[in-house]
This record gives sequence, structure tokens and C-alpha cells, in this order.
Amino acid sequence: MSNFRIVNKFCKFNTRGEIDFIDLSDKIQKEVTDSEIRNGIVHVFSPHSTGIIVLTENDDSLLEDIKVFLEELAPKDRQYQHPSNAHSHLRSMIFPPAKTLPLVNGMIEFGTWQSLLFVETDVYPRERTVIIQVMGE
Amino acid sequence: MSNFRIVNKFCKFNTRGEIDFIDLSDKIQKEVTDSEIRNGIVHVFSPHSTGIIVLTENDDSLLEDIKVFLEELAPKDRQYQHPSNAHSHLRSMIFPPAKTLPLVNGMIEFGTWQSLLFVETDVYPRERTVIIQVMGE
Amino acid sequence: MSNFRIVNKFCKFNTRGEIDFIDLSDKIQKEVTDSEIRNGIVHVFSPHSTGIIVLTENDDSLLEDIKVFLEELAPKDRQYQHPSNAHSHLRSMIFPPAKTLPLVNGMIEFGTWQSLLFVETDVYPRERTVIIQVMGE
Repeated sequence: MSNFRIVNKFCKFNTRGEIDFIDLSDKIQKEVTDSEIRNGIVHVFSPHSTGIIVLTENDDSLLEDIKVFLEELAPKDRQYQHPSNAHSHLRSMIFPPAKTLPLVNGMIEFGTWQSLLFVETDVYPRERTVIIQVMGE
Repeated sequence: MSNFRIVNKFCKFNTRGEIDFIDLSDKIQKEVTDSEIRNGIVHVFSPHSTGIIVLTENDDSLLEDIKVFLEELAPKDRQYQHPSNAHSHLRSMIFPPAKTLPLVNGMIEFGTWQSLLFVETDVYPRERTVIIQVMGE
Repeated sequence: MSNFRIVNKFCKFNTRGEIDFIDLSDKIQKEVTDSEIRNGIVHVFSPHSTGIIVLTENDDSLLEDIKVFLEELAPKDRQYQHPSNAHSHLRSMIFPPAKTLPLVNGMIEFGTWQSLLFVETDVYPRERTVIIQVMGE
């Protein structure tokens, strides 16, 4: 008989302003372990239009490269129609604030060089929410 | 006992040509409400290789910025190997036509400034399909 | 009564070096058929930070355009902080190695011009893993 179910958790944290990296990998694994769900998926979603979620190696030199990459893709000092933070919205559109992770035998199947990072792309510090949904059996 | 289940819905609509924005947020919430599933995820997927789905603020000035952004990322008048609409395919690859949304207590957890938009990136009007899958309990 | 369940499969293959395209569409459909799950989703995830997964038309001329596109978005010969393969990481960040596909009546709802391709973005041949999760009823 199926015991497929879902556990929804909300995680709140503060960012320190534009391009701040918050590693959520350990927090997500903890919610998975607490849920006692062993096989399924974990959907991580942030209800913000000026934040992003990426899967990447959490290495200081690479994070510097990512800052430059974001600036080149959607430069901050260009003229836009939307006032004040259009570049933040465009960055959030190209790197959407959501990821779905595989859960196998109680562990998220992160690769050796994969971490899940929230990146603040808005122009000032914000309080942010991430919804962590553990689904499976 | 688990009552986890899935409801699949197909939504068809017409676009008016290249870079047409269709806001599907209300339609998706209606399918969720009709399904009577209260907690889970909603997977929205469009089986097209020249359309995109984005989560963004639905604001006219920002939509103008998005048009410019798409044109800069994959310019229409460049020389490509693939005939006629390579730029449409590249835009669809960078903004894939799919999103997974969290469903909590009967409501999709859109942020205040988040809407789900289908964007036509092909070079002429098309009939488009979006598959809306509500999964949960 | 719910018979919602999940089947996890691991698929391993070798790539031939930077920008190698591997079409996984048929392999994924086979895992779906073997699972006997008829309605749900299929989550495809690769635990690598220098590989990507895209949905696109599998057409030789378009694949050439995609190579140029990747090179323009994150050029290989630029100066980066991260040693040796920063451009591979940035490409993997902008095209994450994951896709969620709809499963309806036993068939993945690929569009006519949609295939799922793994693209090697690291600088030498690698053994790669893709996790295929079939969830549904």
C-alpha cells in the first residue's frame, strides 16, 4: 500500500544586499532527514522575483566568476524601462529561484561539486523565504 | 493512508506572433482549485521547442526590458546554421518551457511579484498547448 | 486507494570531451515503460557541476548553433578566478543538469521537436551519471 506523502517547510533568512550567497544544502538535507521520507524528490522554491537559486560548486574563486557573469548577462547600470531593479528581475528570470533535487535512500543526490545556493540579486538587504517540499515514500 | 494522486489537464491557446506574453497564473490556480488537491506541486510544461515559460513580475515596463534581453541573448538577425528560427530555439533552451510550483493549503505559493508567463518566441502566430499537472494530497 | 509510487534508476555513460551531445530521450521512455507507472512526472537529474541537460530539437545544424551559443555566453579563453574549467561551471549554472517531464497515459509528453540531451561541458572525456526518477500511479 502506498505511503507516498508530502512535507512542506518554510525557511526564512536575511541577506546582506546585492549578490550575497547563502548555501542551503545542509538545511535542505536536515529537512529531508527530519521528514523520514526516503525516496522521492525535494522541491526548493523561493517566492521572490529578484532572487535566484543555483546549483554550483561552492568555491570562493568560482563565486567571484559568478558575480562577473551575472553583471555581464544583465548589467546593473544600463538604461531599463522598469525602475530601479530591472537587472535583478532579468537575472532572476534567467536563473529561476527553484530547483528539484532527487532523494534516494534518505540522501539528496548532490554531486561531489554541487551545492544549492540562494543568491540575493536585489539591490538591498532583504528577508527571504524558501519553501522546501519533501515528497516521496 | 495515502491519498496522493495526480490530475493532468491540457490548456490550449493562440499566440499573436513573436514575443507575445500570455499570463497563465489564474488558469493554473483554477485547475488546482478544481482538482481539490491541497498540498503538493504543480508542474507546468509546454511541449514546444520555440516557446518559453518564465516566472516574473507582470509589469509592462519590465516586459519591454525582457524583449530587449531576449534579443541581446540570441539576436534574430544573426547568421545561424539552423534555418529560419534558430534564435527561437536558443531562447527556448535558455528559458525552458517548464516550471514546477509549490502548492500549500490549496494555494500556489506565488510571491507577490511573481506571475507565470508563456512567451511566444517563434516567428509567427501559433496554437500552443500547456500541460498542467497537479500532484499531491 | 492510492498506488502512487517512485522508481529510481541510474544511467551511466561516457562522453568524448567538451561539447558532446548524448540524446537520452529513448532511454528515459524505456525506463518509464519498464516502471509501469502511467501518469506522473519523470525527473532527470545529473549530479555534476560541469554538465548540462537541455530540451531542444536534435538537429545537426541546431547543435552547431548551440556550440557557438555556449561559447558566446561563457567563453573558454577568458580570464577567470576559478582554475581550468570556470566556463564549464558557468555553462552548467545557466543550463542546469535537470529536467522534469510530464508522463501521461504511459508516454512522456515530448513535443514533436523536443529531445532531451545531456551536453558535456567539461574540458575532457568523463564518465557521467544521470538519475531517472519515475513518480506517479
